[in-house]
Amino acid sequence: MIKANDPSLHSWIDIAPNNDFPIQNLPFGIFQTPTRDPRVGVAIGEYILDLCVVAQHNLFELIDIDPTVFHKRYLNDFISLGRPVWRAVRNRVSHLLRNDNEEISGNSDMIRECLVLQSEAEMLMPVKVPNYTDFYSSIEHATNVGTMFRDPKNALLPNWKHIPIGYHGRASSIVVSGTPIHRPNGQTKAPDADAPTFGPSRLLDFELEVAFITGRETKLGQSITPDEANEYIFGLVLFNDWSARDMQTWEYVPLGPFLAKSFGSSISPWVVTLDALEPFKVKGPVQDPKPLPYLEFHGNHNYDINLEVLLKPEGGEENSICRSNYKYMYWNMNQQLAHQSSNGCNIQVGDMYASGTISGAEKDSFGSMLELTWRGTNPIQLSDGTERKFINDYDEVIMRGYSERNGIRIGFGEVKGKVLPAL
Amino acid sequence: MIKANDPSLHSWIDIAPNNDFPIQNLPFGIFQTPTRDPRVGVAIGEYILDLCVVAQHNLFELIDIDPTVFHKRYLNDFISLGRPVWRAVRNRVSHLLRNDNEEISGNSDMIRECLVLQSEAEMLMPVKVPNYTDFYSSIEHATNVGTMFRDPKNALLPNWKHIPIGYHGRASSIVVSGTPIHRPNGQTKAPDADAPTFGPSRLLDFELEVAFITGRETKLGQSITPDEANEYIFGLVLFNDWSARDMQTWEYVPLGPFLAKSFGSSISPWVVTLDALEPFKVKGPVQDPKPLPYLEFHGNHNYDINLEVLLKPEGGEENSICRSNYKYMYWNMNQQLAHQSSNGCNIQVGDMYASGTISGAEKDSFGSMLELTWRGTNPIQLSDGTERKFINDYDEVIMRGYSERNGIRIGFGEVKGKVLPAL
Repeated sequence: MIKANDPSLHSWIDIAPNNDFPIQNLPFGIFQTPTRDPRVGVAIGEYILDLCVVAQHNLFELIDIDPTVFHKRYLNDFISLGRPVWRAVRNRVSHLLRNDNEEISGNSDMIRECLVLQSEAEMLMPVKVPNYTDFYSSIEHATNVGTMFRDPKNALLPNWKHIPIGYHGRASSIVVSGTPIHRPNGQTKAPDADAPTFGPSRLLDFELEVAFITGRETKLGQSITPDEANEYIFGLVLFNDWSARDMQTWEYVPLGPFLAKSFGSSISPWVVTLDALEPFKVKGPVQDPKPLPYLEFHGNHNYDINLEVLLKPEGGEENSICRSNYKYMYWNMNQQLAHQSSNGCNIQVGDMYASGTISGAEKDSFGSMLELTWRGTNPIQLSDGTERKFINDYDEVIMRGYSERNGIRIGFGEVKGKVLPAL
Repeated sequence: MIKANDPSLHSWIDIAPNNDFPIQNLPFGIFQTPTRDPRVGVAIGEYILDLCVVAQHNLFELIDIDPTVFHKRYLNDFISLGRPVWRAVRNRVSHLLRNDNEEISGNSDMIRECLVLQSEAEMLMPVKVPNYTDFYSSIEHATNVGTMFRDPKNALLPNWKHIPIGYHGRASSIVVSGTPIHRPNGQTKAPDADAPTFGPSRLLDFELEVAFITGRETKLGQSITPDEANEYIFGLVLFNDWSARDMQTWEYVPLGPFLAKSFGSSISPWVVTLDALEPFKVKGPVQDPKPLPYLEFHGNHNYDINLEVLLKPEGGEENSICRSNYKYMYWNMNQQLAHQSSNGCNIQVGDMYASGTISGAEKDSFGSMLELTWRGTNPIQLSDGTERKFINDYDEVIMRGYSERNGIRIGFGEVKGKVLPAL
């Protein structure tokens, strides 16, 4: 059987070469239109394949699956069926969309029923997120932050190369791409002020991250090894961890970031599966010192995913302000999940585990305004003649990501969000 | 109409004077028995009133409520109906249980159908917890920890008296009383060691806390004032925030506690409503400096709830090791909820907001082993002749709480958990 990510596959749907969603990708999401209530879809070119309709036509009949899992507000029920089922459905969808298959393509009514233009659909949150963790796994980012806020000579804290450092984040305020984000109000204190004040954050930032979504639960007390982790990971999305730097500085000692983060995080709507990303596995950075045995892994678990951040001022054009890559991660996601579960903490279906800001070694690869402008000391010049130290009201922040090799591009689409004034 | 917490009320059910669940209490929970699947119940004396059966007999017919909300695995659907409905149901239950009401008491079949002995029922997690925050709102606890780990002269950090400090916790591992807790494995590093090691925590601790559960959601961007907070709070439970001190010390800088906490937190199964606790409101500690306007409140929002921690070694008897009181809280729960939402973070139904360790001024009122034994330097002597610096395998930790005035005792029951060896 031809694998669903084989470069030789072609679809009967016309797909432009630079499109994020060729037949080798087939990411899952939740969409609705005025005539279709929320349901599971798969992105293909400019279209969405409506899996709810596909199931109604018994086109999944050889897979042992309850068709109602495609007629849901979230992917969680489908995901919880487990990796063999995700794979079977993805393989079947690949088959239906191949240029040699006529089950849908052979009938214009079928095509009309099964395909929806993405431009005519609204994408919704793909999963209900029971738990959200934000890691801190880019050594360049941790070094930059440590250099700015602590001591350049000891920028990395002593635990950093031993522990995939992370913290629990707020699940309720994770929203899908396109949702506007109000500038948060909060406490800040200037270094020379006697007391804090409350008001709109002045130092609003983004953080360029990638998050993985778990598709299999563990019991309390159970742990997962890095080599087992792939069985638990459903797929990945782009993640913007909006951050209010002035609030963060004042609140974060000793219990970590709290309200500086919980006002909103934005994700891309299409969940790209690990299977689609398989050809883009690369070796990660050398880990020295060698991690403790519970964090040891075999094979490659870093992924070559090009990442870009664009800033679009109100009425202006997109300015590319950062180009980074997910392959820079010091701690890979298998290690992150192993660490998360190493104390017996139970994993749930739909959990989101974000990478932490993904910065590279070059200045234009830093994944936050904090680092790009070096705390505002080196503002970014935009094409409309204005400059930015941090994010202004009505600015839109857009993140895009894709892997590419042998002419096959596996894309994530985008996550975007416009900042509105504080309420 | 007589209020449901009027001291003059009596039930047709015999209730011992020291019972936690007189007719003035009426806490909500989820229970099951071999013949009753999970459903909503109200504790009354030694019994549970089965609200599912009460509804089936149309005894809620004057309340505009869908009776199926009582036939659920969690209280969330019931709670989300809002405060007027919680109150109407509680008032109706109070009416049905009064000694002058015969709708149930007048018929032995009805009594048999509606009442279940608590000793014959299993209590389950009362709510599905979408988000969990742990605050740090006892000034005595924060001072003790600051004294031990930082600087006795500057024990309280500069932000503490301005911000109700808190952090996001792990929702998935909150379990109901009686669930055993395995000692977690994790990284620890001795101060004089070159590198960390991985293995069972040696410094396992409890934290005596009270958590409130929200019953009304807000939209992203919306904030709640302290004076509005009562409309959003359904009720309270006892909360044991199990903590691995050696893991915490090594991991918590800079992003806060993570795996030192997420292996498990235990709660009492009965949710005591704010209405039941209304007579026990007391003035809180003076807040100096005056909090910022968004944290200002009117009236009293501290509650006089006696708290006790008992340690029961395997085969031994219960040793009372701590007596504290919820009234010591520096930041009250209305301020906590106002702070949580002040940046626009959305609140969800079933969210759990824990107080942080509740320590008093006296040494026997400290709410953790860390403080009671002062980092192990002053071990606790148990009645079986052994001593404890921290918690041993097979020790059971039990927390109880109640308010009492005018002969009326509003109790929480207990939260208990036995520590099992690391897996």
